[in-house]
Amino acid sequence: MTDTSRPAVLGQNQYGKAENRVVRITRNGATHHIKDLNVSVALSGDMEEVHYSGSNANVLPTDTTKNTVFAFAKEHGIESAEQFGIHLARHFVTSQEPVHRARIRVEEYAWERIATSDAHEGEHSFVRRGQETRLAQVTYDGERWEVVSGLKDLTVLNSTDSEFRGYVKDRYTTLQETRGRVLATSVAARWRFHWTDDRQPMPDWETSYERTKQHLLQAFAETYSLSLQQTMYRMGARIIDHRDEIAEVRLSLPNRHHFQVDLEPFGLENDGEDGAVYLAADRPYGLIEATILRNGCEALIPADLTNL
Amino acid sequence: MTDTSRPAVLGQNQYGKAENRVVRITRNGATHHIKDLNVSVALSGDMEEVHYSGSNANVLPTDTTKNTVFAFAKEHGIESAEQFGIHLARHFVTSQEPVHRARIRVEEYAWERIATSDAHEGEHSFVRRGQETRLAQVTYDGERWEVVSGLKDLTVLNSTDSEFRGYVKDRYTTLQETRGRVLATSVAARWRFHWTDDRQPMPDWETSYERTKQHLLQAFAETYSLSLQQTMYRMGARIIDHRDEIAEVRLSLPNRHHFQVDLEPFGLENDGEDGAVYLAADRPYGLIEATILRNGCEALIPADLTNL
Amino acid sequence: MTDTSRPAVLGQNQYGKAENRVVRITRNGATHHIKDLNVSVALSGDMEEVHYSGSNANVLPTDTTKNTVFAFAKEHGIESAEQFGIHLARHFVTSQEPVHRARIRVEEYAWERIATSDAHEGEHSFVRRGQETRLAQVTYDGERWEVVSGLKDLTVLNSTDSEFRGYVKDRYTTLQETRGRVLATSVAARWRFHWTDDRQPMPDWETSYERTKQHLLQAFAETYSLSLQQTMYRMGARIIDHRDEIAEVRLSLPNRHHFQVDLEPFGLENDGEDGAVYLAADRPYGLIEATILRNGCEALIPADLTNL
Amino acid sequence: MTDTSRPAVLGQNQYGKAENRVVRITRNGATHHIKDLNVSVALSGDMEEVHYSGSNANVLPTDTTKNTVFAFAKEHGIESAEQFGIHLARHFVTSQEPVHRARIRVEEYAWERIATSDAHEGEHSFVRRGQETRLAQVTYDGERWEVVSGLKDLTVLNSTDSEFRGYVKDRYTTLQETRGRVLATSVAARWRFHWTDDRQPMPDWETSYERTKQHLLQAFAETYSLSLQQTMYRMGARIIDHRDEIAEVRLSLPNRHHFQVDLEPFGLENDGEDGAVYLAADRPYGLIEATILRNGCEALIPADLTNL
Repeated sequence: MTDTSRPAVLGQNQYGKAENRVVRITRNGATHHIKDLNVSVALSGDMEEVHYSGSNANVLPTDTTKNTVFAFAKEHGIESAEQFGIHLARHFVTSQEPVHRARIRVEEYAWERIATSDAHEGEHSFVRRGQETRLAQVTYDGERWEVVSGLKDLTVLNSTDSEFRGYVKDRYTTLQETRGRVLATSVAARWRFHWTDDRQPMPDWETSYERTKQHLLQAFAETYSLSLQQTMYRMGARIIDHRDEIAEVRLSLPNRHHFQVDLEPFGLENDGEDGAVYLAADRPYGLIEATILRNGCEALIPADLTNL
Repeated sequence: MTDTSRPAVLGQNQYGKAENRVVRITRNGATHHIKDLNVSVALSGDMEEVHYSGSNANVLPTDTTKNTVFAFAKEHGIESAEQFGIHLARHFVTSQEPVHRARIRVEEYAWERIATSDAHEGEHSFVRRGQETRLAQVTYDGERWEVVSGLKDLTVLNSTDSEFRGYVKDRYTTLQETRGRVLATSVAARWRFHWTDDRQPMPDWETSYERTKQHLLQAFAETYSLSLQQTMYRMGARIIDHRDEIAEVRLSLPNRHHFQVDLEPFGLENDGEDGAVYLAADRPYGLIEATILRNGCEALIPADLTNL
Repeated sequence: MTDTSRPAVLGQNQYGKAENRVVRITRNGATHHIKDLNVSVALSGDMEEVHYSGSNANVLPTDTTKNTVFAFAKEHGIESAEQFGIHLARHFVTSQEPVHRARIRVEEYAWERIATSDAHEGEHSFVRRGQETRLAQVTYDGERWEVVSGLKDLTVLNSTDSEFRGYVKDRYTTLQETRGRVLATSVAARWRFHWTDDRQPMPDWETSYERTKQHLLQAFAETYSLSLQQTMYRMGARIIDHRDEIAEVRLSLPNRHHFQVDLEPFGLENDGEDGAVYLAADRPYGLIEATILRNGCEALIPADLTNL
Repeated sequence: MTDTSRPAVLGQNQYGKAENRVVRITRNGATHHIKDLNVSVALSGDMEEVHYSGSNANVLPTDTTKNTVFAFAKEHGIESAEQFGIHLARHFVTSQEPVHRARIRVEEYAWERIATSDAHEGEHSFVRRGQETRLAQVTYDGERWEVVSGLKDLTVLNSTDSEFRGYVKDRYTTLQETRGRVLATSVAARWRFHWTDDRQPMPDWETSYERTKQHLLQAFAETYSLSLQQTMYRMGARIIDHRDEIAEVRLSLPNRHHFQVDLEPFGLENDGEDGAVYLAADRPYGLIEATILRNGCEALIPADLTNL
């Protein structure tokens, strides 16, 4: 990357097969289990020549990375999204000389069992839960691991205990202060683990995920909110407080506005115990983002999770 | 519509405000309740002039229909999607002379409570369930009601008890017969109620929905499938058998193919108790659709639920 | 469908492979041509047994219908979406005894050539146009043809010559009358051809599509609008007036509201020659739909193009 | 951010109103002009307290940032997406003491005029072009500017002049080498300008965008491709070579696979001058990404444009 004779030089680059939809079903007698993943591979390393001259001598085809995903799902099983990513990343970096770094991203879709009537035998019918999508990202450079887990599209709402007051007013401010508003958001979260080294004991990825998700939900539910920023900080801080394996949390929370509808023109007071009516708006929306770090840890999750 | 002097005459027409996102929250002490709907209004009647000459003398603005949705959510509450649609449809047809028919469509999004720690008081935090979207359509012409309920995006999978054999082969057939395949689909269903008249007792819309959804799930789970058509018929028939209030069911089931991956090139046998690996494909997909009717009833749900 | 011994009987049903993404490239010397389609097959006929008992004896697999789409693209070429649909529908109905009716739906994506520099030879680079999606639907029952063509996602806007006044006011009306508004919509249109019989001369499908699209655009642009209904009627009537091959038009026009923003709180008058500022809203939106028929023709396009 | 008494400390954070859909129409006589943007504001600075204690004393509401977007569209006009972003970013940083950095993101949708018949007067009807979405991002910290422009969803295809050979084979490789394949991608591109200082002359943002897009298209069309990486490098290098105002380009190119369908089972040779037939696949897809830098410049565009 230091070729001084070219006006245009190559910077960071990566390639691989994205969105391999791999499903693994284990059939232990009548009770089956399912893992449903969307796996994306990105490799980088000694790849100048394929960009400059088109020589593919160092290029493992993206088609091969796809085959590897499916073969590994059979060979190694899918214990967890993170463990599966670790198997894949290690393989690409250690088996291919020109590959210096591998990043495996996984989306996971949860299924639950369909409750059947007594007469029916077996446990092999499932319905997709459809709530949040679980996320995992594993990066390996041959020496250190970075594991970032997370979730997206976890939509939550508090119907009270939220106010917004005492803010800056300038000449473009028209918003009225409020002591009562609906607070709703769709949580996008990433959290980075301390674990970086094969010699350290690995976290229990499955348990860690379930507990972390519960902390997000409970911190949201139990915080009396003075601002969405404060709620967000509490969500991240609760994870740091309770999950020792996690070093850093990144949250991106759209403020899904629920506007109390003005029904006065129709002689209706839109409030009271018997209910209030809101318009759930699409766009624009507030977007509140922050990193919450364990004291003394470095911030490594990129600040912009969303696209340019 | 019988103007014989024009080369181009008006046929069926309708108008209204679509996708009103109305949320109603009731706050009975510390325990709150939420209803989250997307409501679309379509009116028709004596509307030739607005099309031919642009005279709006018979046109209630779509903006007014929007206001009515929000005002009615306050005035009448939202007991169920169907009941809310009935209030609205009756209002438009009976209060506006030129409106001869109203059709109200509703999508409903389900929320469940967030379980909080003991120390926390109150029941006012929710997480969106995220599974299927509930549907309701109410049509009223001043005399008769038609109520069609349903759901979409209910994704289900059987990991065994599905085969596909004995089909027609022609010169374009390459598919191999199978005695074991994954059967997965995303259920889109509509069901029409017998109820058409204010003098008849109304079904319990909420209970009916929950039970009907369970019948769909259980029929899917408990059928040993020889074809997706057969599974689909059983799903509809189970509703007809168990839910007396329902006259007709329409189902549209995409066959979400899970292809068993050929791992032989890598020396792996992709089968056995310890698991098999599948590629979940996007497109193309089989699409299997049918109406299942109570014997003696008329088929009134349109055959094509999907767009041209 | 007249089995009186069953409580649940089969009504209308159909099946096939949906969304076959077929691309055909012809390479006449250095100038290449591309056709890019999404083809869905739906077959119906003597299919009771597969639903009732699971016997596939009458079932041509959806996989075979997929193979046929790709093989026919090679064998017959893709002269137009409509002509391709005719080849396929005829094949399924005439070659398979149990198939009594075939419906082929096509989406078509348009490409244009990339203009290259003089030094470059050949015409084999394309960029997707990305404007509307063209639609075609061909139905055949062994005797009669029905061809419905159309388009979707053609977004248009008039920045003047639109007003909305003289409408009904009721107790829920708050909208102010206006003599100047932005009129914007995303056109979804279907039009049915007179052609039903192999002995009649076939329309020139490609020319017909291009001209019909131009009529939609020009009628929208040239109508001084008193209501979106009136504009819609003019769009349909212009097709009927100019395209003799077309019997019937169905239009579905969302009113993509552009709200003039109130800037008075900031001491700004939001109007004048130098420009006005609008908020382009997402939901809710007005939805205006109608059939416009050639006088004396029957209305056969279903009224509800959108999903329940 | 160095509070050592808390276990969980605040890292990078930002907030603002996202996706303000602002449309500005200028009406110079009968010829109108339209600018159609989606504007997102993100502010950061002295914001610890709102996260830690919920004090909003330093918080300009996101609602105010929305109002500012609409007011500025009126006050300053929208000369270009970039210039509009510069007005906004400067305002937030210079008018609000606690705001130290503003980042404005813009999506722009292009419209073209509808050609009307001779009899029609005026130029105030538009149809959305629907091809690529233009992107701009402006960041300001009170001293330095960073402007990154770009585009997404520009779908291109070469029907010849593409091969893929000479790559690494391992035990998971099954791909066959090819001397002829369809090469298709959907271009996502970002490019950063040298301009950082108000005292430097500003680029002509509109001209720069048009020319840069043309270079992307022509480099794609005119490159005989040995790999998508090589084509990608040429696309970036062509911009660096021809557009002096640009320091750095980031490209993300999904390999939209067009698989030549095996028609041998049907006795058809799928090749030849009269055309070949392809299946356009959705997932998985190759994903090829790189930064191409002007020699001597720093790489500042984040490597991962896509979400975790």
